[in-house]
Amino acid sequence: MFEFNDRVMFEDKPNDLLTVGEMLVDMISDNYGDGYENNGYTRFFGGSPSNIAINANKLGIRSHIVSAVGEDSLGTFLLNRLREAGMDTDGIQTTPDSTSLVVVTKSQSTPVPIFYRGADYGLTYNGSLERALNNSKAVHFSCWPISKVPARHTVERVIEEARRNKMLIGFDPNYHPKIWERDEDGVAYVKSVISKVDIVKPSEDDAERLFGPDSHANQVEKFLELGAKLVIMTLGKDGAIVSNGKETVIFASLATVVEDTTGAGDAFWSGFYAAVIKGHTIKEALELGFAVSAFKLKYTGAVVDLPELEAIKRQFNL
Amino acid sequence: MFEFNDRVMFEDKPNDLLTVGEMLVDMISDNYGDGYENNGYTRFFGGSPSNIAINANKLGIRSHIVSAVGEDSLGTFLLNRLREAGMDTDGIQTTPDSTSLVVVTKSQSTPVPIFYRGADYGLTYNGSLERALNNSKAVHFSCWPISKVPARHTVERVIEEARRNKMLIGFDPNYHPKIWERDEDGVAYVKSVISKVDIVKPSEDDAERLFGPDSHANQVEKFLELGAKLVIMTLGKDGAIVSNGKETVIFASLATVVEDTTGAGDAFWSGFYAAVIKGHTIKEALELGFAVSAFKLKYTGAVVDLPELEAIKRQFNL
Repeated sequence: MFEFNDRVMFEDKPNDLLTVGEMLVDMISDNYGDGYENNGYTRFFGGSPSNIAINANKLGIRSHIVSAVGEDSLGTFLLNRLREAGMDTDGIQTTPDSTSLVVVTKSQSTPVPIFYRGADYGLTYNGSLERALNNSKAVHFSCWPISKVPARHTVERVIEEARRNKMLIGFDPNYHPKIWERDEDGVAYVKSVISKVDIVKPSEDDAERLFGPDSHANQVEKFLELGAKLVIMTLGKDGAIVSNGKETVIFASLATVVEDTTGAGDAFWSGFYAAVIKGHTIKEALELGFAVSAFKLKYTGAVVDLPELEAIKRQFNL
Repeated sequence: MFEFNDRVMFEDKPNDLLTVGEMLVDMISDNYGDGYENNGYTRFFGGSPSNIAINANKLGIRSHIVSAVGEDSLGTFLLNRLREAGMDTDGIQTTPDSTSLVVVTKSQSTPVPIFYRGADYGLTYNGSLERALNNSKAVHFSCWPISKVPARHTVERVIEEARRNKMLIGFDPNYHPKIWERDEDGVAYVKSVISKVDIVKPSEDDAERLFGPDSHANQVEKFLELGAKLVIMTLGKDGAIVSNGKETVIFASLATVVEDTTGAGDAFWSGFYAAVIKGHTIKEALELGFAVSAFKLKYTGAVVDLPELEAIKRQFNL
């Protein structure tokens, strides 16, 4: 149970947050549409766990990323960017597959990402990963690594070990059928994972993909029934509805300017983790998470130049 | 046996050349290297069978392409380009996987392509493919579709049917371990395919990947021993060595200006097919193939604005 006015107690560890999962290249079109004139693309560093780790580091906690890239020029690109962001790359494995890639061709209607799974799902559980885990206070992952074996087995062992170590476990149930194997019921598997973690942050779309359409309150209830201890359901410009099973709190969005929504969810996670690890209450950490998200929304790009958490706190009068 | 001064006799058919295999997007970096400043890429229409079919059409024979793309914006892009090149798209299947993609980051050393196999290997043998096959005089494919099931099974049925129909069968043994499944001996499988086709056009590198290093004459001999009836081994600027098992002829390169080598091999194939189908002897067809290749080398891009075969013939005094 996470009481809103409680603080999470952590053992002293050399690292704060460990994120486990995909690092990938986002190849995004420079213009809209499929016309002859619009063939330019730009590669970006991508992958939610690495964005969260980089953000958390900027906000002032120690973070570490475990992921896998290919032995190719796109893998080198990702490793270089990670180093340039001041992160160590000890946790990055290389696998014989191509570095995972997502192509997004901008469209006046809905831009549909095209997924190219490669190296990321080759992530294995090894001694280095186990040490990183045992040295951390909290661990975070999303649906990417659990969608495909062997990364799934790696995350299963991570969850087991994290539970044994009483670490805080956060999971982004961002289920998408396109990244799942076609012959498997991804929904059932994602639900089985929700039952083993502490905190989930579904969007309305995530909830609908997992449970079908229903009211916000009912959707939150379903995550709680599966066993999540804190459910943070984000509602875009309408803020979020958060429940610990005993109490449900509505948070209004703190965003004043929305320049680009990419990475807003990752910004929330990093603000939330930074705050709970720095000793804030759950309620304060949620507010700080939404403040970091609002800060990010003012700028373009998945990872923006975040100040320390204390500066965000002052800026948003929290 | 293909005597150098013989012509290939074809039954009258509504189509001349059918190419079967990959259509894919080549995503090529605009600049060299992995630096911060070099993140721009441009997408191009790619895939050797479609290049050959488009070229052959420009040279004045009727051609048709059978391939598979994903139901995504990159698939739409490829279909649009094919239509713009004046080709019909009846033979293009759609599969649930992402449109196949190759990323090439230019490098001052050797640029290594990064392969993202998707829709292309989902190609199935269906009634439409069988009709296209029965309506054609010659069929062509490369190592892409045979590297992965189910496309491999489709090509196996194509070969069977083409042999029964006494079609001319051309195969590009461009074996590359990177497109093969890691747990399978691709070399053995490619060799088994060589034994069932009429004409192969290996490069020196292809031969070395299949047989290890050896002299040109010995490499050509190995392809003949496997059962190929005409072996065209290309030697870059040194031309080509061609053998029908009885006679071996060296062809000097006809290239005068080399602006870009991309697609030079496809240009050869299309010139060769166009010439044999138009009734030229094998020797003349080889010369015309090398002439088309030399024409293409003067321009940048995989598919350039080729004139009719007769114009090439006049231009190269053949």
